[in-house]
Amino acid sequence: MELHPEWVVGFVDGEGCFYVGVNKNKTMSVGYQVLPEFRVVQHQRDIQVLYALKRFFGCGTVRRNHEDRYELRIRKIECLKKVVEFFQKHPLKTKKNVDLKKFSKIIKMMEEGRHLTKEGLIEIVQIALEMNTGKRDNLRRILDDLTGKAG
Amino acid sequence: MELHPEWVVGFVDGEGCFYVGVNKNKTMSVGYQVLPEFRVVQHQRDIQVLYALKRFFGCGTVRRNHEDRYELRIRKIECLKKVVEFFQKHPLKTKKNVDLKKFSKIIKMMEEGRHLTKEGLIEIVQIALEMNTGKRDNLRRILDDLTGKAG
Repeated sequence: MELHPEWVVGFVDGEGCFYVGVNKNKTMSVGYQVLPEFRVVQHQRDIQVLYALKRFFGCGTVRRNHEDRYELRIRKIECLKKVVEFFQKHPLKTKKNVDLKKFSKIIKMMEEGRHLTKEGLIEIVQIALEMNTGKRDNLRRILDDLTGKAG
Repeated sequence: MELHPEWVVGFVDGEGCFYVGVNKNKTMSVGYQVLPEFRVVQHQRDIQVLYALKRFFGCGTVRRNHEDRYELRIRKIECLKKVVEFFQKHPLKTKKNVDLKKFSKIIKMMEEGRHLTKEGLIEIVQIALEMNTGKRDNLRRILDDLTGKAG
């Protein structure tokens, strides 16, 4: 299955998700790990579309998401850079483009190693909080922890 | 907002729905009305995409779907013909293409007036039953009624 770049933009405008998770991780200098990912979920009947997207971007893993749904998940920073560059060249038409810009900013900060400093991490969590896909309660708790507001 | 045909295919592969409703209607010769529709639902933040699709197809109505969601809905047969012709020229990549083919068959039968005969209506309900979007229980009840199996 050959994918046209504009088809990819339209499909991701509908089905794609730019997500930044932040998890407790004692091995990290700041105590938290930043996990950005790009995800497309489909019913198993359309798993071939996920494989076509994987070939299109040249990276990612197709895996079970939940029950009869599968996902293409891209997590490697160098791969996410390629994804971001693609959508900078071929802009999304929905408000997902706003998320993409925030996502892209976080990827850039991570390349600069800023997620390894407390100040950088605080900024990343603040940007993630503004994204449509963020788990806000969790991010707010982390922000409180990092800024010393926790009870 | 200008839409590229391939973007439209990708977006509809993600978000579009080809649906054939069959409702009781005493004014119809066979007692039922066939209501095919093409629908795209979005959060209100992306209502401008629905208006862009409306301009692209040159028909349809943008209306509230539910709470903060809006939909572009196309119901007129001459408009649905245009939609079907577009997707015949630019095929969907997901299994929605199978639904489109069934939908297209129903539209053709309606143009020939076959939904106004009991035999034609039975065939339409059988095709709608095979679609991914059909309300199967309702369609099965109608089929039982039309074929005289009802208790």
